[in-house]
Amino acid sequence: MSFEEARAQFPVLESYAYLNAGTNGPIARSTAAAVVAEVERDLARGRSGAAWVERALALREDARRGIAAVIEVDPGLVAITDSTTRGCSIVLAGLGVTPEDEIVMTTDEHFGLMGPVHASGARVVLANPDEESIIAAVTPRTRLVATSHVLWTTGRRLDLARVREQCGVPVLVDGAQSAGAIRVDVKPFDFYTVSSQKWLCAPEPTGALYVLDPERLRLRSPGHLAQSSYEPTGAFVPKEGAARFDTGIGTPTLAGLVDALAVHPEWRYERAAEAAARCRELLDARVDVLTPAGDSTLVSFRPNGDPTELVASLSERGVIVRELPRRDIVRASCGWWTSEDDLQRLAAGI
Amino acid sequence: MSFEEARAQFPVLESYAYLNAGTNGPIARSTAAAVVAEVERDLARGRSGAAWVERALALREDARRGIAAVIEVDPGLVAITDSTTRGCSIVLAGLGVTPEDEIVMTTDEHFGLMGPVHASGARVVLANPDEESIIAAVTPRTRLVATSHVLWTTGRRLDLARVREQCGVPVLVDGAQSAGAIRVDVKPFDFYTVSSQKWLCAPEPTGALYVLDPERLRLRSPGHLAQSSYEPTGAFVPKEGAARFDTGIGTPTLAGLVDALAVHPEWRYERAAEAAARCRELLDARVDVLTPAGDSTLVSFRPNGDPTELVASLSERGVIVRELPRRDIVRASCGWWTSEDDLQRLAAGI
Repeated sequence: MSFEEARAQFPVLESYAYLNAGTNGPIARSTAAAVVAEVERDLARGRSGAAWVERALALREDARRGIAAVIEVDPGLVAITDSTTRGCSIVLAGLGVTPEDEIVMTTDEHFGLMGPVHASGARVVLANPDEESIIAAVTPRTRLVATSHVLWTTGRRLDLARVREQCGVPVLVDGAQSAGAIRVDVKPFDFYTVSSQKWLCAPEPTGALYVLDPERLRLRSPGHLAQSSYEPTGAFVPKEGAARFDTGIGTPTLAGLVDALAVHPEWRYERAAEAAARCRELLDARVDVLTPAGDSTLVSFRPNGDPTELVASLSERGVIVRELPRRDIVRASCGWWTSEDDLQRLAAGI
Repeated sequence: MSFEEARAQFPVLESYAYLNAGTNGPIARSTAAAVVAEVERDLARGRSGAAWVERALALREDARRGIAAVIEVDPGLVAITDSTTRGCSIVLAGLGVTPEDEIVMTTDEHFGLMGPVHASGARVVLANPDEESIIAAVTPRTRLVATSHVLWTTGRRLDLARVREQCGVPVLVDGAQSAGAIRVDVKPFDFYTVSSQKWLCAPEPTGALYVLDPERLRLRSPGHLAQSSYEPTGAFVPKEGAARFDTGIGTPTLAGLVDALAVHPEWRYERAAEAAARCRELLDARVDVLTPAGDSTLVSFRPNGDPTELVASLSERGVIVRELPRRDIVRASCGWWTSEDDLQRLAAGI
């Protein structure tokens, strides 16, 4: 598939320089069509019966295999969730931490991770967002290191395999800005979240959670279809593997997710990295670029003027980027679908 | 709106005697159209920017008002969730029960309630599904009574206001088979769940949770958009009221939910009760009907032969009911949209 053919799947790119997959990716025509087809089917045939349930479960397994392929793991270690926030909550609730436990987190996390970390009741230890600071913050009381692979703020990529190896404590990785954007190796980690509506261009809310050892994480919010059997007391035998952590997702949304996983060309990661490098190059002459070269598909920068005004004025020109509140940062997200013209429009608007 | 006009909103009723709203309700054309319109909008314009976020938040408030109107409470006491399962998990996780606490539950609960009750770690005390047995099971250690308003098995309605008054302990009501089906008064209760995809005919997964005193329930799975502000440690100031417990729902699904809340005629409860009474009348001559007269919109019965075979043979005739696994029960769900012809087709198939 040529770049032009692959890019043409996304109608939003005809009208906009859409540079905000870090919030929500563009949607392909086929993905929208898959959602609509499922809605029409439910409308005409209803939403019950053995065939309907079987179809929903089959779509779920297709999604599981598709996401497992993206992060290159066994599908049995992947739970289908509705978000990174949910994935983090599943892990934090399941670990059963106490106020005596410490969780090391960086200063640059998204609420989807830090909200559940705080709500767990553990003592939160903040580290600067670099490998050395994280490693230095770990103590014998540290129960978990919880941080992003790619920081949603500066777009910096952390070498978390090194952190995992040197610290020897479990690591929960927020993969919202990495999975699907850059090639990732999740095997060194205990938990890794995926936000499918961003770089995987799926309907919202969809996501996944990789769990290295599903048997060892307690299931605190059991879903109806994620268990093998249960008693009238609610005591249950969970499904094999990470499927026990599955959360409810509508059939139309699942169908869209399955379609979205198939719209990405083989050269996705190489092309996305090129687009980000080109974006840096164009912006470097104009503003203070914060993202280290080669780290990610985000290009964060400190604008010369007011960030809110810049984002608004770019939006008026059809250039879609976002501001990071309270940080004086504007962030452009470059996907494999991003064109030279998109980037020129961004540069011209700054 | 006449019965014929109101019923004509649901295409599935043209082909099937669809008697399974207890699993998932029929979908109106306008509801499907609302979902599709949102998908098309996202496809063409992308899913980010101030206008997009404002629209998503506005749809959420519309949904909150709509569900508050159904259960006749202040919208500030309603959280928009993705299911009854989620609502139950929010309550059980938030109460912070210990293995010394007891939770009284009946033998006839759905996994959406009993799964979270079991996972809470409290001691589960099972009572027969009647008011006297529930009241008798309460001890000084009882932290919560958790049960359904209308049992999903037999369709029996419990007088839980009496239970609440006599026991004096908090009551979590699983409203999956009551809210939207029968007129409910949730004010006596501490927590009440709504499953919007059933009797409210909304897309799945959608639901709500009524919380009498939101300030007193700890928030264990905080959502990103449900907080007023937060610090880098994840410490947060929750939104006012029950909105703090909101869970992530896609914009197309929210739009469908808002539409679905508007498709129900004023005479909904009266007509649904009449349909259920007529269903009982027709079935009573043929099978052992388990649902007490006048209790609910479910009509559960013990078939003369094998329930699996009966459900399959009815399905072949276009009559959609469901079997309740391991209980030898078949259940027909009667909505305000159910016609005499639907019921005659059911009766003829038995």
